Amino acid sequence: MLRPTSRLLSIAASPSRRQVVFSGIQPTGVPHLGNYLGALRQWVKLQDEAAPESTLLYSVVDLHAITVAQDPARLRQWRKEMFASLIAVGLDPKRSIIFCQSAVPAHSELMWILSCTASIGYLSRMTQWKSKLALPDNVSPLDESSKAKLRLGLFSYPVLQAADVLVHRATHVPVGEDQSQHLEFARNCANAFNHTSGKILVPPETILSPAKRVMSLTQPQLKMSKSHKNPKSRILISDSRDEITKKIKSALTDSISSITYDPQQRPGVSNLIEILYHLDAAEVRSCHELAHDYKDLSMRAFKEKVADSIDERLSSIRDKYESVMHDANTHWLSDMNEEGSRRARASADATMALVREAVGL
Amino acid sequence: MLRPTSRLLSIAASPSRRQVVFSGIQPTGVPHLGNYLGALRQWVKLQDEAAPESTLLYSVVDLHAITVAQDPARLRQWRKEMFASLIAVGLDPKRSIIFCQSAVPAHSELMWILSCTASIGYLSRMTQWKSKLALPDNVSPLDESSKAKLRLGLFSYPVLQAADVLVHRATHVPVGEDQSQHLEFARNCANAFNHTSGKILVPPETILSPAKRVMSLTQPQLKMSKSHKNPKSRILISDSRDEITKKIKSALTDSISSITYDPQQRPGVSNLIEILYHLDAAEVRSCHELAHDYKDLSMRAFKEKVADSIDERLSSIRDKYESVMHDANTHWLSDMNEEGSRRARASADATMALVREAVGL
Repeated sequence: MLRPTSRLLSIAASPSRRQVVFSGIQPTGVPHLGNYLGALRQWVKLQDEAAPESTLLYSVVDLHAITVAQDPARLRQWRKEMFASLIAVGLDPKRSIIFCQSAVPAHSELMWILSCTASIGYLSRMTQWKSKLALPDNVSPLDESSKAKLRLGLFSYPVLQAADVLVHRATHVPVGEDQSQHLEFARNCANAFNHTSGKILVPPETILSPAKRVMSLTQPQLKMSKSHKNPKSRILISDSRDEITKKIKSALTDSISSITYDPQQRPGVSNLIEILYHLDAAEVRSCHELAHDYKDLSMRAFKEKVADSIDERLSSIRDKYESVMHDANTHWLSDMNEEGSRRARASADATMALVREAVGL
Repeated sequence: MLRPTSRLLSIAASPSRRQVVFSGIQPTGVPHLGNYLGALRQWVKLQDEAAPESTLLYSVVDLHAITVAQDPARLRQWRKEMFASLIAVGLDPKRSIIFCQSAVPAHSELMWILSCTASIGYLSRMTQWKSKLALPDNVSPLDESSKAKLRLGLFSYPVLQAADVLVHRATHVPVGEDQSQHLEFARNCANAFNHTSGKILVPPETILSPAKRVMSLTQPQLKMSKSHKNPKSRILISDSRDEITKKIKSALTDSISSITYDPQQRPGVSNLIEILYHLDAAEVRSCHELAHDYKDLSMRAFKEKVADSIDERLSSIRDKYESVMHDANTHWLSDMNEEGSRRARASADATMALVREAVGL
């Protein structure tokens, strides 16, 4: 298991070059603490530290979500909740372009154009479709086990993901370790296109997010996830103080009577220590130091400390989320959404004009 | 080889039901006589016989063209020439919606949505990608021979073709025999979508064009085609009387001294007889009857007769083509193009509103 060793990476200041940051998140409803500490907090940091001439685009990637079956009403609600959450965690819709992928047709258009040069062999070697279908890494798309389940969308979605990034000519893309293969593919797509058509697309640089494996509260050997059945397994960024306290209280730990940091032998309590560690954005004290600080606390008292710290960190986010979702001015959220879509379309259309000209469309 | 036996099919008049006709043609420049007699003349007939409440959409499918390598400037010119040709043969841009596929982003958007349910196994069994790559019918996309050449665009383009039809909720699609497999796939896509999402998409009916195999003038065992190197192998609908005469004069025939219809033994002269046969839209006299009418002519005199008949049929098309391409009002063609795009977008957007609602986007 990867353990965090470094601080959040910053883009080195390079005043001479305008930067375009793009990243996307699936519409899974209100994000959990792992999403926040792993990705969203970094997005906010990139926004707050960006040079004035830089552009930041953050997308709720709903076209990716439909590669698996979705309930339409729930998907629509989840999209709204995720959009509101991005604002709640500190993304400023006046500064960053926040938008839903499906509101920008150019993502699909460029996907098709890139398809025309994307190799079937390369795609079949990628790992994500195999893990999504719970198939072994050495399986081929046309093996009997794959063929019955595999749909074109899931197989080809790295090309849509490449289009997401390339259509905005993003220079920097913050992603987790598991997405770096896809970003490598996006660079290949850009280089292949440019090789034929001139210097149009921008091969993006990866900003690798330091791994922050916030684990399930009920099964600490698994990552915290929206897809686990038990809602007590995760803290949502909109959870009330009361919900946070209850969930942390019921978190699976062990009966050893002191607080120590030992992810192998004591995954439950170690996960709580890591949460504490990550809650401090500066990550000043290591997990071992934190464990030492609290070594004499009872598990109950330690859990109270953890719940307090989470609540302290999330309270302003929760308030913002509630006000954005239930604002007296009910049009505010949809206005922000529309405004983000408009700006994202403008960004994408500028690229597509160059692409069309280069391709002959 | 299929020989024509029936007249152009008509859509049975059903005044109670609004019909939507869609068909597409690749931007290969000015169409040849085979394109005209096989597809375009039928498009015009469908237009002219359509009930007033019916909609007809004819698309220059440039997104399909880029599944193989294209020279951008040439592609742009070919697109313009094909668009002008559609008007020259008698499609009325005020009555029919004539447009370039790439001007309507919803084609790519719906393609992605359909991808999410399209089976990789089904696509791998389709024949077109194999024939385009000159591979045998029993090859798999991941065999070594395919993998090196096969790109995602070519493999997945039946899904784009399905989207072309379904995004306009077409009820009737005139196609040649070689495309009926793809239309079957489009119906499957529509039914699969509707099964999950309610009755949104329309499974289209095929209008099978009677096979009109107009053969190459220089190699009469091959179909007339824009991709053959020798321009003398084909008559273009914009050819001057002089060009037509020269090409027919040099058409490969044989040294037998009378005119008889025998496609197996005398493919060259039989092809000229078939051209005569098809030039009469009513196809009153059969190929054998025509051969009998001209049996005593010398080959030279017969060729003159054929050239005259072609010229007679094409002269008004040629004049119209020239006037459309080189009109004093140079904006007319691009205005028509823009107007067609606008109407096609409106047609597609109406469907996409239903699709998005149904999917949860």
